[in-house]
Amino acid sequence: MSHILILGGDGYLGWPTAMYFSNRGHEVTVVDNYFRRNACVELDVGMLYPVPTLIERARIWHELTGKEIKVLIGDLTDPEVMRCLFDGRAEYSWALNKNFTGIPETVVHYAEQPSAPYSLINYKYANITLQNNLLVTNNLMFAIRDFSRDTHIIKLGTMGEYGTPDIDIEEGWIEIEHKGRKDKFLFPRQASSLYHTTKIMDTDLLWFGARMWDLRVTDLMQGPVYGIETEESKIDERLRTIFNYDEIFGTILNRFIVQAVADYPLTVYGKGGQTRGYLNINDTLQCIHMSEQSSAQCGELRIFNQIMETFSANELAEKVQDVGKMRGYNVVLNHLENPRKEAEDHYYSPNYKGLIELGVKPHYLTNEVLEGMLQVVQDNKKNIRKEVIFRGITW
Amino acid sequence: MSHILILGGDGYLGWPTAMYFSNRGHEVTVVDNYFRRNACVELDVGMLYPVPTLIERARIWHELTGKEIKVLIGDLTDPEVMRCLFDGRAEYSWALNKNFTGIPETVVHYAEQPSAPYSLINYKYANITLQNNLLVTNNLMFAIRDFSRDTHIIKLGTMGEYGTPDIDIEEGWIEIEHKGRKDKFLFPRQASSLYHTTKIMDTDLLWFGARMWDLRVTDLMQGPVYGIETEESKIDERLRTIFNYDEIFGTILNRFIVQAVADYPLTVYGKGGQTRGYLNINDTLQCIHMSEQSSAQCGELRIFNQIMETFSANELAEKVQDVGKMRGYNVVLNHLENPRKEAEDHYYSPNYKGLIELGVKPHYLTNEVLEGMLQVVQDNKKNIRKEVIFRGITW
Repeated sequence: MSHILILGGDGYLGWPTAMYFSNRGHEVTVVDNYFRRNACVELDVGMLYPVPTLIERARIWHELTGKEIKVLIGDLTDPEVMRCLFDGRAEYSWALNKNFTGIPETVVHYAEQPSAPYSLINYKYANITLQNNLLVTNNLMFAIRDFSRDTHIIKLGTMGEYGTPDIDIEEGWIEIEHKGRKDKFLFPRQASSLYHTTKIMDTDLLWFGARMWDLRVTDLMQGPVYGIETEESKIDERLRTIFNYDEIFGTILNRFIVQAVADYPLTVYGKGGQTRGYLNINDTLQCIHMSEQSSAQCGELRIFNQIMETFSANELAEKVQDVGKMRGYNVVLNHLENPRKEAEDHYYSPNYKGLIELGVKPHYLTNEVLEGMLQVVQDNKKNIRKEVIFRGITW
Repeated sequence: MSHILILGGDGYLGWPTAMYFSNRGHEVTVVDNYFRRNACVELDVGMLYPVPTLIERARIWHELTGKEIKVLIGDLTDPEVMRCLFDGRAEYSWALNKNFTGIPETVVHYAEQPSAPYSLINYKYANITLQNNLLVTNNLMFAIRDFSRDTHIIKLGTMGEYGTPDIDIEEGWIEIEHKGRKDKFLFPRQASSLYHTTKIMDTDLLWFGARMWDLRVTDLMQGPVYGIETEESKIDERLRTIFNYDEIFGTILNRFIVQAVADYPLTVYGKGGQTRGYLNINDTLQCIHMSEQSSAQCGELRIFNQIMETFSANELAEKVQDVGKMRGYNVVLNHLENPRKEAEDHYYSPNYKGLIELGVKPHYLTNEVLEGMLQVVQDNKKNIRKEVIFRGITW
């Protein structure tokens, strides 16, 4: 079993990924600086339920399973924090065995500011987003260049890098024929938030690293994720992932479910024709796993579109409305004036076969899945603060 | 006459641009934090002759011409320094009239770390490059969004953003036909240094700003510039621009000329078939001027390829060899093992009609031009430090 280093191990995807690999016998190290939690406090946005610290979660995981997830609390924008994870200087904040685990075979890089509205609150948050996301990626690239060129980088990109072009979206690459000549290029990208634009920049950085130093990179263009429970979190409520339901850190379906339970009209932006690809949090775990099992080649930037099905905002809202009604909620749709500048009615035809071909078995968005989410939210209804659901960050 | 704000006004192009516009009756403000000079000291790379401080140069310019170039010494990665230039809080480091000039009609943004080798000395210099270039551009974008959406941004990009694709390089944009559908995109870009990659990122940022907030942006994909004297510097030697001849901050032709005079074999990297577009520093001034005269439209990212002719490294070296020999120098070519990872023999067919159509009259690289440069270098031969010419930064 290999050693997996998870950057951003406290986040919505980071912690479930850590447990997932630990459960399958891998050595796992997680690093985080609590950026997300601190931002939630600073911006006064709620979480659906309290979540123990990362160190406490690692302790609970060990108590219940006997397995060790090593924890290092530190800021990866500091290159020395990144480099200590490769050169043996790491001082873990929590570990059973404090000795250096060794250089990881795989790094899963989630350590980014992940919110479009956060990145556009004002110029200060824009700068924080740029600095955090670019420096962490760059520090990772140089650490691997300097200490461990064979380590496989698995990086979370976003389908938002492509925007909504009027042509079919391929998995990362396109051959262009122009004036009788041909070459292959990264698929054109133009994002509709500053956060999404930093992901384009990340891809450019890692493509540079792959070409210059033969790094192995898998860049996963993920759509918005929904869901709460994973196989590993089901053993104890305290292991559940961070769940935000606010406009800043909550993803759209998670928000709609909370709005339904809170008797808050679903916040559909504009006409609601915005179509995106979505996936269940359990499929994120599968996608990372399948990517880890089949490393990118030396010098390869391998790109997959990490979505399982596409919906418009209206379709998602209607699904939540239907399931909510079955459970006795009076779910209303509220078509707000769109706080974002984006196309509300557009062509959208992304290709997303690559991860399925690697062996991922999709969990689709069934009524059963929606009911499972509704149940967890209902159990925590007393924690929902209606006033933090929407504040109208515009751009 | 309008007010022009020049960011990076102390640099190789910044100071000549300031004098050029001042000479033509514009109000000019320059901002710089001496990044380039400080880096030259830190890295111990030489300048061909000493250059007075920016404040001293503004004083000399005023003494000789009666014209005022306002100076603000400050770090534009600090958003408050950027914003004070738009909201009236600016405290000039030097000015005849200390009152705020007002919001500029045009900003010329040169305030970037401009060297590929610098960006790849090691991970620390890589981070400095990323932070400096991205934060200055972002601070500028937000200042204009917040205070002055009508201000025209003229930004220096680089032909290096495109790399050396196997198809013809258009001026910034390309229509792609794919599976029977069409859309227009930024021309695909993949750069061969970290510095050049930050320029791709700048373009992505400003394209975001143009789409979201209707900003007016001209992005000039410039090739390597050569030359020393401009019309304005000829009135007094102390007004000459900063001239580097080292591997880090010297551009290729400027380096070759110094190497010829210093009896140092010309450092041609690898086979020398690397072909690029070049231009005279006087044509940079014309290009900026013509761009300023014809603003981009609201919401437009206007891209020009700012080169006047193309040469391979071998062709440049041979031109310098020929002119050097005529002046009695024994100029030898040294094909070094390439310290960079780049194609040494490749297709290169860039389009560069746009600026000519706007009225730029090219100065081509004639023997006369080369002889003029040789003369200035020869006059300063005693200052040349051979040991700083090449140190072999590799990537």
